[in-house]
Amino acid sequence: MANDPANRTGAVLEIDLAGIAANWRLLRDKAAPAGCAAVVKADAYGLGAARVGVALAAAGCRRFFVATLDEAIALRAVLPDSCEIAVLNGPVRGSAEEFAEHRLVPVLNDPGQIAEWRELGIRRGAAGGPYSAMLQIDTGMARLGLTPREFDRFAENSPADGAIGWRALLSHLACADTADHPLNEAQRLRFATAHARRAGWPASLAASSGIFLGRSFHFDFVRPGAALYGVNPQPGTPNPMRQIVRLNARILQIREVDAGQPVGYGAAQVMAGAGRLATVAVGYADGWLRSSSHRGTGVIGGRCVPLVGRVSMDLAMFDVSGIDLDLARPGGFIELLNEAHGVDAAAAEAGTIGYEVLTALGRRHHRVYCDRC
Amino acid sequence: MANDPANRTGAVLEIDLAGIAANWRLLRDKAAPAGCAAVVKADAYGLGAARVGVALAAAGCRRFFVATLDEAIALRAVLPDSCEIAVLNGPVRGSAEEFAEHRLVPVLNDPGQIAEWRELGIRRGAAGGPYSAMLQIDTGMARLGLTPREFDRFAENSPADGAIGWRALLSHLACADTADHPLNEAQRLRFATAHARRAGWPASLAASSGIFLGRSFHFDFVRPGAALYGVNPQPGTPNPMRQIVRLNARILQIREVDAGQPVGYGAAQVMAGAGRLATVAVGYADGWLRSSSHRGTGVIGGRCVPLVGRVSMDLAMFDVSGIDLDLARPGGFIELLNEAHGVDAAAAEAGTIGYEVLTALGRRHHRVYCDRC
Repeated sequence: MANDPANRTGAVLEIDLAGIAANWRLLRDKAAPAGCAAVVKADAYGLGAARVGVALAAAGCRRFFVATLDEAIALRAVLPDSCEIAVLNGPVRGSAEEFAEHRLVPVLNDPGQIAEWRELGIRRGAAGGPYSAMLQIDTGMARLGLTPREFDRFAENSPADGAIGWRALLSHLACADTADHPLNEAQRLRFATAHARRAGWPASLAASSGIFLGRSFHFDFVRPGAALYGVNPQPGTPNPMRQIVRLNARILQIREVDAGQPVGYGAAQVMAGAGRLATVAVGYADGWLRSSSHRGTGVIGGRCVPLVGRVSMDLAMFDVSGIDLDLARPGGFIELLNEAHGVDAAAAEAGTIGYEVLTALGRRHHRVYCDRC
Repeated sequence: MANDPANRTGAVLEIDLAGIAANWRLLRDKAAPAGCAAVVKADAYGLGAARVGVALAAAGCRRFFVATLDEAIALRAVLPDSCEIAVLNGPVRGSAEEFAEHRLVPVLNDPGQIAEWRELGIRRGAAGGPYSAMLQIDTGMARLGLTPREFDRFAENSPADGAIGWRALLSHLACADTADHPLNEAQRLRFATAHARRAGWPASLAASSGIFLGRSFHFDFVRPGAALYGVNPQPGTPNPMRQIVRLNARILQIREVDAGQPVGYGAAQVMAGAGRLATVAVGYADGWLRSSSHRGTGVIGGRCVPLVGRVSMDLAMFDVSGIDLDLARPGGFIELLNEAHGVDAAAAEAGTIGYEVLTALGRRHHRVYCDRC
């Protein structure tokens, strides 16, 4: 089809929804008998929260986490009513009414948020249901959640007036991807101690990596995000998760170059010998981070090809010397992400983590959702 | 208004359209008597091509450059008919008909694209008009455009059959932001030599930085992009461009911390003394690059505050010790980009260039377009 966007766009991004569901089932089984939520914040780590959310709900997931109110409102419109949607960043001052209106569960992170949510519950004169909330406490990350002193005050003084239907006690691990980091056990102990003061509440500490720290980290439910999307939850060991994305970058032009030819901005890299370059239609404006300049790689015909020079805004160049001209041709593709060259590998080349490779994935890519299994 | 998104979103991004128009006029005057186009590719460097395009057309701009066919189709729908829209990446194989249908001008970068476009012109039996094209030649960047050998063949052999209405000869400088780089003059000479073989065509070599290399680089028209949006075209000298964006990150929580408290993922930074942290609702999923971990800064009440720890996906922490509690309060804002802390400053803190700071600007920000002058 001449008008099929897949035939004309600079890149095609394939997202394997069945693979995400399979990853969720693997994590669910790993965490059982604890429950298993799913984190679909940041537009499901860049992969499309509506499509991912629906696929995970079909797989049996009933508890979802997003970061913001707007993300939650969009997700509410597509998920079954039986699904709970919690908002990790909590309510910005003055937005409590909107949480209630859309049946969203705020994660309350500070005393002001708790007071505002309780006031709404009292004003509306009903307990539980739409006035549900989760409470987050900070156990060593200094990011979101009550400080130990604030939690002490809360545990001692908060009125048991039923104005808030507490759905969970949460905290988040800072170093879960480093299994032997001493902060993991310190955070677990602080969390367990706090939970003992609200023992009736479901408790959740572990995200993706935390699931692999053992049963004592699972509490009542776990809430994986990154691992659903292919990030290795235990760096340095074989990745148990499926790769979810394939990114194919269109070749716009093939060029014969001589030895000594400078390539790209700043003439920052020079061809050591004569060869052939492919210019592809993916650049840092597509989220292919500029920090992968000179050191990124792609795959064509099963062979690894190096990125040459600096990544441009809309373009990048790869050395395809020695690659069959039937493959390395205008209109063909270089694979930037695939099963063999996954998000963690691409991240290492860009000096970052797979999470950022995912959330940066560009808007100009033509997106194809597929079910590989 | 409780339902005003500006009151509930994690960040507000203000984009000064009058400032972009003012920047364009400054560059137009600098380049006169050469003409001045505008580059609005990558969604106008992340700022919204439709809004920016209309503002620039109102300021008098009549020639626009985008990177891709999809960008051009979207822009065609909002620009006056008198505006020409050229597509730098050229037609992907098989998409020539769509260029003609939407009255778009492809930049032809290789012999195959020239052949396909000519064939369309012959088949449709008309010259000029919708079969207009620009030709790009590579003069030392090895990115897009005919190689010197390919241009030789083109200049000697291409039929003067009128099937293509040539609108311009283009090339692009690799090192224009380094005024004394020898490649600038080498590229200029190669371009001038090539242009002598097609002297009747309008010629364009300079983008933002090239405009500041002097009149000999201006040829018939210039085509600034980055400088329109506030990037300094001459790094190391005072920036003649206005800052265009303000990014205000919402404070979600204020936290008292003790000396020795680890902050953020990996416990990679530890508080040297007791103090106060603000957690804001902007993270790398919002394009606030993770590479600014530990070294980014924000501004609150006119004072610079350091980013502490690693940037999270949806959050970042700033040290607001000593900042007035009326300012550093939940619901308040830390300015991540403003007139004093512009895109180049933020880029330096993230180890990249202002261009990438702009194109990474996130989708979750509430966007406000304003006319400051």
